[in-house]
Amino acid sequence: MGIHRFFTSMNDLERIIRCPGKFKFEEHNVAAHSWKVSQYAMFFATIEENSGEVIDWKSLYEKTINHDFAEIFIGDIKTPVKHASPELKQMIAHVEEKMMEKFILDEIPTEFQDVFFERMKEGKDSSIEGRLLEFADKLDQFYESFAELKRGNTDPEFIFMYQEALTKLLKLPLTASVTYFRDVMLEDVKSEDTALDVKAFTLKVLGS
Amino acid sequence: MGIHRFFTSMNDLERIIRCPGKFKFEEHNVAAHSWKVSQYAMFFATIEENSGEVIDWKSLYEKTINHDFAEIFIGDIKTPVKHASPELKQMIAHVEEKMMEKFILDEIPTEFQDVFFERMKEGKDSSIEGRLLEFADKLDQFYESFAELKRGNTDPEFIFMYQEALTKLLKLPLTASVTYFRDVMLEDVKSEDTALDVKAFTLKVLGS
Amino acid sequence: MGIHRFFTSMNDLERIIRCPGKFKFEEHNVAAHSWKVSQYAMFFATIEENSGEVIDWKSLYEKTINHDFAEIFIGDIKTPVKHASPELKQMIAHVEEKMMEKFILDEIPTEFQDVFFERMKEGKDSSIEGRLLEFADKLDQFYESFAELKRGNTDPEFIFMYQEALTKLLKLPLTASVTYFRDVMLEDVKSEDTALDVKAFTLKVLGS
Amino acid sequence: MGIHRFFTSMNDLERIIRCPGKFKFEEHNVAAHSWKVSQYAMFFATIEENSGEVIDWKSLYEKTINHDFAEIFIGDIKTPVKHASPELKQMIAHVEEKMMEKFILDEIPTEFQDVFFERMKEGKDSSIEGRLLEFADKLDQFYESFAELKRGNTDPEFIFMYQEALTKLLKLPLTASVTYFRDVMLEDVKSEDTALDVKAFTLKVLGS
Amino acid sequence: MGIHRFFTSMNDLERIIRCPGKFKFEEHNVAAHSWKVSQYAMFFATIEENSGEVIDWKSLYEKTINHDFAEIFIGDIKTPVKHASPELKQMIAHVEEKMMEKFILDEIPTEFQDVFFERMKEGKDSSIEGRLLEFADKLDQFYESFAELKRGNTDPEFIFMYQEALTKLLKLPLTASVTYFRDVMLEDVKSEDTALDVKAFTLKVLGS
Amino acid sequence: MGIHRFFTSMNDLERIIRCPGKFKFEEHNVAAHSWKVSQYAMFFATIEENSGEVIDWKSLYEKTINHDFAEIFIGDIKTPVKHASPELKQMIAHVEEKMMEKFILDEIPTEFQDVFFERMKEGKDSSIEGRLLEFADKLDQFYESFAELKRGNTDPEFIFMYQEALTKLLKLPLTASVTYFRDVMLEDVKSEDTALDVKAFTLKVLGS
Repeated sequence: MGIHRFFTSMNDLERIIRCPGKFKFEEHNVAAHSWKVSQYAMFFATIEENSGEVIDWKSLYEKTINHDFAEIFIGDIKTPVKHASPELKQMIAHVEEKMMEKFILDEIPTEFQDVFFERMKEGKDSSIEGRLLEFADKLDQFYESFAELKRGNTDPEFIFMYQEALTKLLKLPLTASVTYFRDVMLEDVKSEDTALDVKAFTLKVLGS
Repeated sequence: MGIHRFFTSMNDLERIIRCPGKFKFEEHNVAAHSWKVSQYAMFFATIEENSGEVIDWKSLYEKTINHDFAEIFIGDIKTPVKHASPELKQMIAHVEEKMMEKFILDEIPTEFQDVFFERMKEGKDSSIEGRLLEFADKLDQFYESFAELKRGNTDPEFIFMYQEALTKLLKLPLTASVTYFRDVMLEDVKSEDTALDVKAFTLKVLGS
Repeated sequence: MGIHRFFTSMNDLERIIRCPGKFKFEEHNVAAHSWKVSQYAMFFATIEENSGEVIDWKSLYEKTINHDFAEIFIGDIKTPVKHASPELKQMIAHVEEKMMEKFILDEIPTEFQDVFFERMKEGKDSSIEGRLLEFADKLDQFYESFAELKRGNTDPEFIFMYQEALTKLLKLPLTASVTYFRDVMLEDVKSEDTALDVKAFTLKVLGS
Repeated sequence: MGIHRFFTSMNDLERIIRCPGKFKFEEHNVAAHSWKVSQYAMFFATIEENSGEVIDWKSLYEKTINHDFAEIFIGDIKTPVKHASPELKQMIAHVEEKMMEKFILDEIPTEFQDVFFERMKEGKDSSIEGRLLEFADKLDQFYESFAELKRGNTDPEFIFMYQEALTKLLKLPLTASVTYFRDVMLEDVKSEDTALDVKAFTLKVLGS
Repeated sequence: MGIHRFFTSMNDLERIIRCPGKFKFEEHNVAAHSWKVSQYAMFFATIEENSGEVIDWKSLYEKTINHDFAEIFIGDIKTPVKHASPELKQMIAHVEEKMMEKFILDEIPTEFQDVFFERMKEGKDSSIEGRLLEFADKLDQFYESFAELKRGNTDPEFIFMYQEALTKLLKLPLTASVTYFRDVMLEDVKSEDTALDVKAFTLKVLGS
Repeated sequence: MGIHRFFTSMNDLERIIRCPGKFKFEEHNVAAHSWKVSQYAMFFATIEENSGEVIDWKSLYEKTINHDFAEIFIGDIKTPVKHASPELKQMIAHVEEKMMEKFILDEIPTEFQDVFFERMKEGKDSSIEGRLLEFADKLDQFYESFAELKRGNTDPEFIFMYQEALTKLLKLPLTASVTYFRDVMLEDVKSEDTALDVKAFTLKVLGS
């Protein structure tokens, strides 16, 4: 039906809950997550720009707001599934790509199909915008698990998610962003009152 | 950790929502769905037994309560994905099997592993119990979509789900059950007051 | 209206919340509870069978999936009410029985009424299946209160529910099941990270 | 523990949902219901006062805010149960009374016990305040079912609740209130846009 | 449309959530809050009456059930906004007054407009009923924040709300009520098991 | 505390519900709304770019993701309040501005304050990006009310919101966007199956 159909389908992402199946004190939907990612990315792009990098803001804007659009087709597959095997991860990526392709050909008017193919492709490439997307996406995993630990969620999955996100954030090739995150933001994180000992979980990763 | 871990993981199925992403007047979780399936199956097994079939009740019990257990690992993948291609459907079945295998080897004590491998395997085989499971599972799809249409949900997906379930129910090789469903139950269905014209959707399938 | 009406009424049990009125971090409906009970019962029936008992699987299947069906009429009456006096408990049981009788006579086709009277009667009798139902039902009370204590619910009612369930479980005349629960499962329970000191609550009951 | 315990127990009524088990587009808790009843009662007491009646405002205040307090013990028992038999209705009233008595003796300091016994007793007596309470309580049933019908809830129970409430409201011995409700308010009710034909349901009762 | 419109608008207050935007383990709507305030007020009015004060019960009834009615127009504005500046607080009060005036002139029949202007005006005046309303309103803020702290909500806003409510309660010119609250009720509060150290927060205020 | 505090405060917008107090079949939070606005804006910016306009993508990105950030302080004030008077609307805008200023000075590190002052200021100016923001924001009001009408919400407020949004969209000075919306998208809107007669509501606005 065209763009009207595309716009109404966006509503579906408000009903896809992240990290399905696990007990959480607070749920997050994929639409709200995408907004938070676009906020983090804008902040760290500013950091990078200030340190001399050149940012393609249109690309960053496109990448962040579209990066989870494919969940409209496939839902938020449980993380352990995604990481069960590299082979499976690849299969799922392949399926998402095929369904996105079908959606664009069926729903998007011909004149906009090229634009949509460009915008909806996997955004986490090696460009600075691709790396900022990856940083921002991990940062939201970091903050979502931080909030659960802060409120006392004893499910070990959230400690795992927190430490995994932290580990990956610290290793991303974005020198200025990682430095700011580690030297400024983590200091504030460690000083918060939390129900579980988040500071200890953090130090364990930093010490490694 | 053993059976304690298995029992606590069951709680996850209370948080997996069926048909994720679509607007629904009422949500259903996989645990409650499994209970309804075990109820339908018991009724139609009684119908079949009355018409001369022999039922292995232990097998039917096992099949119905365990048939969606694998969603603990993978969630309720959106139906369109499952049916996007036979190849994808097979891939997903394969992934579920691998994760179930891993779960049983990691979590279930050795003495019970054989029992669990038997119970958790795909239940929809050609045995009468396997066909009753398939009938009962489709019947819940029928009733879930019926309830949405009755309340006036105009999303075309629920008309599709309703008619697809109805079509499959009428074709399953369970003569007595299908006859009872078509000749007795569908009469009651058609006579209900509903916001959308469910009777017309039903007649369309019956007439084909 | 017959079986169609019976099947649509099952949906009501998805809306009856257990333990109404109390603050809970997570709610459980009666349909999902019934599924969990049928899972526990199957496991412990296997334990009993392995230790030489003979299980009537059809009976166990019927008892577990139907044991709370009467809550369709009366809701989940608050536990303190049920235990306020033996006289009251009996009155309520009587009411449920009368309403179930009325429902079967009004809604179930004559040909199935005998089957339904048999299936819907109180299942917790002295047969091994009746005792397994009681064990499984208490075990779900145990796990529901355990989950609240684990997450830090300080309402004294959940400590009471946990210890009451534990006390009753340990006294049920099901030697193999009780032994397995006490010697294997409780060890895992005691070793979990929990917000409140569940291990202490457990030891208090075990020591008595 | 005294009044502190009484005050914290009030929170329980925010979690008791009225008309449990039935599908509703919107749920209502007993605390909010009590507030609406106290609003309706104040308005109709004003109507009665204007027509020459003498109102004991303290009594009306006490009756309205306390009339469902006993649901803290027993929950919102499903209406069909309450009306299954006069005998059952009486039994339940008796149970509530006993539990309220126990609560007052256990929790309320001796100096306030007389006040609480007076305030918590059944309020729907033949005094004008008792009749206003009954009118206001029925009026909330009227408005709750009206709202469901207006939004298109096809469950026959809400038509029944609507017509039963309307029938009882019109028969209550409160001349000025009933006249105002019938001649002024029902005109507005009948002129509303509604998904189901509420005007027809209303006329059917008025015509009888 | 008259009183019918007034009564249906009350439903809106069941959807206005107090303290919007903050993470809470449990939400409270304005309708339920109003009921709790009317309960607290009745109790402390009894205390005051016992100590020799004269209570106008009709006035207290009117003040408590209507005190937040204006939130129908304006919602529960976030507390920090209300206290950002005395000027802003006054602006908001002014807006609420204007909207209430418009509502009464538009919706309430002429014959009742005087009554509604009287009932809907700001209730927290210096009369004993006005002071009891203020006490009861603060007490609900006290209990709402107490419940969050008890369950372990680490958001500093709830410590702030708890201590602010406590401070104000202790200073209100209602000698008998304040004495009872401080000497009897706070003793029970301090002896409760709580996830955060509520006793310490309480002593800090008492010691000041 | 700096950027960490800014990032955690974003979570508050996931709890601010749009159009508070009104009955809605589906709720929307401000975070998800902001994401949808950034999607609409990108699409129509592409339309404008194709018709020869020059887009500052960084500015559009900033404007769309930040346009409702001030609701962190003030919540989603009910729309009727905002439009009660131009004076009130101005007062509220002033308050939001003051609170944003205070937040930036208190929470944002000095080195980023200029960037935040720039990003958080009112975005709906006369630049093409400002007009695209206004168009996208109105379009979400259009789609939110459309979805309620489609599902049969009879509250007149949603007809009002739908027609008001439509009227404003058609008048915005964005020739290419308005043309595409009117000539292409509205055709699809009018052809949808809806519970209420949305086509008629649409034609009424178009005909005026």
